[in-house]
Amino acid sequence: MNIYDIISRKRDGFALTEEELRFVARCAARGKSDGGDAAENGADDSQLSALLMAIYLNGMTDEETALLTDAMAHSGDMLDLSRFGTLSADKHSTGGVGDKTSLIVAPICASLGVKMAKMSGRGLGHTGGTVDKLESIPGCRTALSEEEFLSQVERVGVAVVGQTADLAPADKKLYSLRDHTATVGCIPLIVSSIMSKKLAAGAKNIVLDVKYGSGAFMKTPEKAEELATKMVNIGKACGRNVAAVLTDMDTPLGTNIGNSLEVMEAADVLKYNVASDLSEVSFTLAAHIVSLTYGMPFDDAMAHVKDTVSSGAAFAKMKEWIAAQGGDASCLEDPSRFPQAAAAADVISDKGGFLAHMDAEAVGLASVALGAGRTVKDGPVDHAAGIVLRKKTGDRVVPGDVLCTLYTNKTEAVAQASERFLSALTFAEEPPVPQPLILKSIN
Amino acid sequence: MNIYDIISRKRDGFALTEEELRFVARCAARGKSDGGDAAENGADDSQLSALLMAIYLNGMTDEETALLTDAMAHSGDMLDLSRFGTLSADKHSTGGVGDKTSLIVAPICASLGVKMAKMSGRGLGHTGGTVDKLESIPGCRTALSEEEFLSQVERVGVAVVGQTADLAPADKKLYSLRDHTATVGCIPLIVSSIMSKKLAAGAKNIVLDVKYGSGAFMKTPEKAEELATKMVNIGKACGRNVAAVLTDMDTPLGTNIGNSLEVMEAADVLKYNVASDLSEVSFTLAAHIVSLTYGMPFDDAMAHVKDTVSSGAAFAKMKEWIAAQGGDASCLEDPSRFPQAAAAADVISDKGGFLAHMDAEAVGLASVALGAGRTVKDGPVDHAAGIVLRKKTGDRVVPGDVLCTLYTNKTEAVAQASERFLSALTFAEEPPVPQPLILKSIN
Repeated sequence: MNIYDIISRKRDGFALTEEELRFVARCAARGKSDGGDAAENGADDSQLSALLMAIYLNGMTDEETALLTDAMAHSGDMLDLSRFGTLSADKHSTGGVGDKTSLIVAPICASLGVKMAKMSGRGLGHTGGTVDKLESIPGCRTALSEEEFLSQVERVGVAVVGQTADLAPADKKLYSLRDHTATVGCIPLIVSSIMSKKLAAGAKNIVLDVKYGSGAFMKTPEKAEELATKMVNIGKACGRNVAAVLTDMDTPLGTNIGNSLEVMEAADVLKYNVASDLSEVSFTLAAHIVSLTYGMPFDDAMAHVKDTVSSGAAFAKMKEWIAAQGGDASCLEDPSRFPQAAAAADVISDKGGFLAHMDAEAVGLASVALGAGRTVKDGPVDHAAGIVLRKKTGDRVVPGDVLCTLYTNKTEAVAQASERFLSALTFAEEPPVPQPLILKSIN
Repeated sequence: MNIYDIISRKRDGFALTEEELRFVARCAARGKSDGGDAAENGADDSQLSALLMAIYLNGMTDEETALLTDAMAHSGDMLDLSRFGTLSADKHSTGGVGDKTSLIVAPICASLGVKMAKMSGRGLGHTGGTVDKLESIPGCRTALSEEEFLSQVERVGVAVVGQTADLAPADKKLYSLRDHTATVGCIPLIVSSIMSKKLAAGAKNIVLDVKYGSGAFMKTPEKAEELATKMVNIGKACGRNVAAVLTDMDTPLGTNIGNSLEVMEAADVLKYNVASDLSEVSFTLAAHIVSLTYGMPFDDAMAHVKDTVSSGAAFAKMKEWIAAQGGDASCLEDPSRFPQAAAAADVISDKGGFLAHMDAEAVGLASVALGAGRTVKDGPVDHAAGIVLRKKTGDRVVPGDVLCTLYTNKTEAVAQASERFLSALTFAEEPPVPQPLILKSIN
């Protein structure tokens, strides 16, 4: 078995075998130094990159994808959540702009007895990450040891940490290669990347929020559905309960974009229980988790979700959770306790009509310009920076209306961010045809 | 301009522009450290490898191939042979087993006034290299300075050296990546690799020996013709006189395989002028060079070639050439002056019938087992090791006949080499249908 022959076979359009895919995962996890003769027993970055491009162009069957996923999941540590029996749950989003649903879903489910054990990431490019959002709360720690993490899940019902254990190191290597060899947008590779991490993270119940539209990685509902279906099938084949929800990310979700701004909006959903696009998506995801965990019909689960929010139990759980991770939970009651941005600038419309479309990716990039996101991995973020939308798609606008407010500590960036924001908007004389926010669920 | 976008465009099946291909050649020649921001101005090995696989699978147009060839040719030094006017010539073979034609063609052409300025390579795998063959002659140097090289061409009419100048460094990098990412066998990449080096090596007249069959890189005449036609067209577009000859490499060329054994056979062709498959291919290649150089009809050029051999002028030129490079030319008169192998073992046939086929690659690998070739780049070779064929395809064999003699200093390798050699043979009751040795010429 050697990588040259594996590359050749995929190049020539053959399906790789289980043994070959395990070899690839082992090579990616360990590199060339996998003992013995390096040339025969490992693969360097250029060989893995050539293989990734061959996979991108020649595809992988569902069976190959499942085998690679399993091999990558087992390439490092596997988190053991068996102490929670069938109650452990995890949620994954394919990434969006203004997507703070994890901050809402996790305490809702925890307040209903689900054990939410979630490893999360940092933001990059136009999409944010839950770890950055949590760290915008003064004192909140996201670097917990495995034992701290598990005991908090046991005690509080929810913990969210940055990835600490050596989970799916093969995916880590392949993802970083895909990221700079233009091989990210390949469904079998996306599926195996996401699901290998989810399987290694150990939860019995997994709900996937697969987004489509201008701000999502999948631009069309069809592609999103293909991705979602494959992920659900692989998760089930590996003995997990899995559901996916296809949600619209053509425009930003909710009104706030930026780390502490998003925490404030998430807290408001649980505190005031006002119906919005954000609450609709969040409650749906939470209801799927409850439904999977307790084997309960979706409508019954949704009733429990609505009850726990309206009773205040979910908001109480959110405060308990943040406090458990060291965060100042009083910020959730009083947003003025968050560090504030130096400048707040309203963007005024010189146009009138209906707001027909707001390009989510462009709005995300405007928030990055204000300092809310990263342009390079491990770069700094300004937790106070971001955008609060005052008008959403479908709203009527008259010239002089405030479209949004920009928050930043980089006042010199306001002009550019304002321009980017305005470029994201399309106006029309007629109101746009409303699009469904949640297209469908896949079980 | 950045490599990510270039990879993406080729991945999606677009033709790359001249600017993009120049950028790729520059990246390959200089790596990431091409000044400025590395991520924006260069490409690492994994990015180049992903691009090579995308080119392998999505192809390149003739125009792209010509542009990449030109960009790679100009990625380093360009040898200046202008002092030889229109008389400079070069010959390239795509590689075979027992292919010692350069040792015959070069002195023939030089004896007719052509200036043979040839950079050559070392052997790898089942095919040999002219530099190794020359170095099997005691004292013969193949590492000449550029000025030594050019002044020898001027004085003697012929010099062959290992590549010393920094010719086509972009090809050097891309070739080494292709070699271990399974992207060697791609016609546009082969064309640009070979022709970029030939263009940089500066000769006005170039003859290409494109081989097909079991011992060649191109297994079919059709693929060889496609390759040959593209190389001829690109060379002409760059202002050179180019011809290609499609020759059979389904069985080894000549009788001797191994470095000093091949020098002996080449000398014998010029010394005794006996007709054989080797002399037929060699004289044809030499006649094409003479025809291109002097703008003379091929048949007239062939008459000159035969005259210079039969007169002894070509053999005299061979001795003058070897002596000029420091070699003991008396070896060419008396092969017993070469260092001899410790063991000579006859391989005896236990079968009878006609020798219907002899697989060239398998015979080449048998000679490698004896020490005549390399299994890894820069590994050692045993100049005395090799195989002398006593029977060739089409010959009648009776049980007990000697099929070949194995020469080696590794007596423990004889059994394995003998087995490999026998596995290369196919016997039949009827004589095989003779195949043309020279399929066609492409001008």
